[in-house]
Amino acid sequence: MVTSHDVARLAGVSQPTVSRALRDSGKVSEETKRRVRQAAKALGYVPSETGRALSSGRTRRIGLLLTDLENQFYPHVIAPMHHELEAYGYQLVLQTETTDTATVAERLISNGLDGVLLATTTVDSVVPVRLRDRGVPFVYFNRTADAMEADSATVDPVPGLSEVAREIAALGHRRVGAIFGPRNTSTALQRETALRDALDEQGLAIGSAATHRGPFDFDTGYEGAQRLLGRDPRPTVIVCGNDVVALGALNAAKDLGVAVPDDVSMVGFDDLPAAAWPLVRLTTVAFDLDAMARKAANLLVRRVEAEEPQPYEHAVFGTHLVRRGTLAAAG
Amino acid sequence: MVTSHDVARLAGVSQPTVSRALRDSGKVSEETKRRVRQAAKALGYVPSETGRALSSGRTRRIGLLLTDLENQFYPHVIAPMHHELEAYGYQLVLQTETTDTATVAERLISNGLDGVLLATTTVDSVVPVRLRDRGVPFVYFNRTADAMEADSATVDPVPGLSEVAREIAALGHRRVGAIFGPRNTSTALQRETALRDALDEQGLAIGSAATHRGPFDFDTGYEGAQRLLGRDPRPTVIVCGNDVVALGALNAAKDLGVAVPDDVSMVGFDDLPAAAWPLVRLTTVAFDLDAMARKAANLLVRRVEAEEPQPYEHAVFGTHLVRRGTLAAAG
Repeated sequence: MVTSHDVARLAGVSQPTVSRALRDSGKVSEETKRRVRQAAKALGYVPSETGRALSSGRTRRIGLLLTDLENQFYPHVIAPMHHELEAYGYQLVLQTETTDTATVAERLISNGLDGVLLATTTVDSVVPVRLRDRGVPFVYFNRTADAMEADSATVDPVPGLSEVAREIAALGHRRVGAIFGPRNTSTALQRETALRDALDEQGLAIGSAATHRGPFDFDTGYEGAQRLLGRDPRPTVIVCGNDVVALGALNAAKDLGVAVPDDVSMVGFDDLPAAAWPLVRLTTVAFDLDAMARKAANLLVRRVEAEEPQPYEHAVFGTHLVRRGTLAAAG
Repeated sequence: MVTSHDVARLAGVSQPTVSRALRDSGKVSEETKRRVRQAAKALGYVPSETGRALSSGRTRRIGLLLTDLENQFYPHVIAPMHHELEAYGYQLVLQTETTDTATVAERLISNGLDGVLLATTTVDSVVPVRLRDRGVPFVYFNRTADAMEADSATVDPVPGLSEVAREIAALGHRRVGAIFGPRNTSTALQRETALRDALDEQGLAIGSAATHRGPFDFDTGYEGAQRLLGRDPRPTVIVCGNDVVALGALNAAKDLGVAVPDDVSMVGFDDLPAAAWPLVRLTTVAFDLDAMARKAANLLVRRVEAEEPQPYEHAVFGTHLVRRGTLAAAG
């Protein structure tokens, strides 16, 4: 039987530090936490909380609820969540959503999950309400719902989009287009508000004719760019709701023979790996997606293992502009 | 309590057809199977096999073992497997592999999974041996191991790569380069053999100096193309082990200022969505990945639910060339 003393020895720290590190205490450095987790994993150490949890009937399974597995965003989220949960002895169970959210909630509840990571929540989602009713802990990842407070790991789009607006103004753009995400997601709403406010500060605005809106997917970007680039006069820059949308928009421009950034500039949001490809070189807004995914998993483990009520924690991750090749001076 | 008669009514078929459709009998058309599955799902119908399974102590959880979630190939595999399993009342549990495969096998076994889909098996994998020892059913998806026979859903690369070789010869290429996958995977070995044989029939060969080998990832393609394109004379065409490798290679060419297909042609394998992007237009070898993923899940459900031993089934999916913009006449 491996004990926390064995982990302490391997990690080169004291036994109390092992406990604190595995509880993700703020008193332990990130580097030490990493070392302790690696040691725990290498030894197959199961913390005593786990022992208590097992005897209390927990399943050690955490659900990840999402809609669109083929959206390139989610694969990059699944791996860090998985690794974080694994370090605490939990399994990740994938759940894909259907249209009937009450049914989805019932299925989650009947699956006996210890908790659920909600990654594709809409502002009016029923699932959080049902989970709370039934006492199933959950954490919002990236998106939140209005009705129900919970622990959350989200992005603050303001710093990154303020940089975008300043850059757009400095490069002499006057006709700004935008392809926004769906109005029933907190991320789309926050990004739209942040962009409009930041452009306003620069004396710029997005005309209603230069606005397109749709799901956060490739087709929205492709169709949106086709529409906006077909207008006369067309926008000189298009800001996209996320990178997947921007990839659709860049490909539409390619099909239309509209040169990026010579004829039109484009900006994304998320900084997915494909944004950095030499073939793409997308200027975009970045944040620490890996840390955010791990944080969401970590918040949920703490919530699941808490022995008494705790205040909700809202971890907010900052954003910044990543300059690549798709934002240049207005033509 | 929903019965098979309710499903039959909703699907507009007879009750025996419902049973046959949910067992994936060859006597029922694909269209009818789809309709029955949709009806079963809509009504929340749990087949009687499931009832028996539940009372026999099954967990209704199927593991998917893979190494590289961020490889763009796997997200496209997870969704169809998930949907197929869901239709039979099983949950998909993700498992990522570490370096110690015996440990991984123990973890899979201790998790009480009803069966495991092996998606990243190497030819010398220990996991299949351990699973068989412990009586845990498994199915090979895409890759197989040498030591242990099992149900499998794999690709036959020969037809697609034969087309590639004929096209390469017809377009006047004489210096053929290749970036192969790792020698310990059945897919890399089969594709290499198929390509070499097919080129040989055309009187062509891949020089050892024009060969690069590495994991099936972006960096292998990027580094391989940098190496091969740095040679003098360089190959006029590079055939890549898969599309992710080809994307790396295309991006290396872009960085080097080598025009595709004017200066060098490139070919992929898998036909991932990004291969069809206007910015990429990758000529590649395609197969029905969705059907293959569903088939693997289906084979595993049948194996899990079989009440007596059955011969192994090897479902092999054909391949064909998809002509886009990266394979043209030798410069």
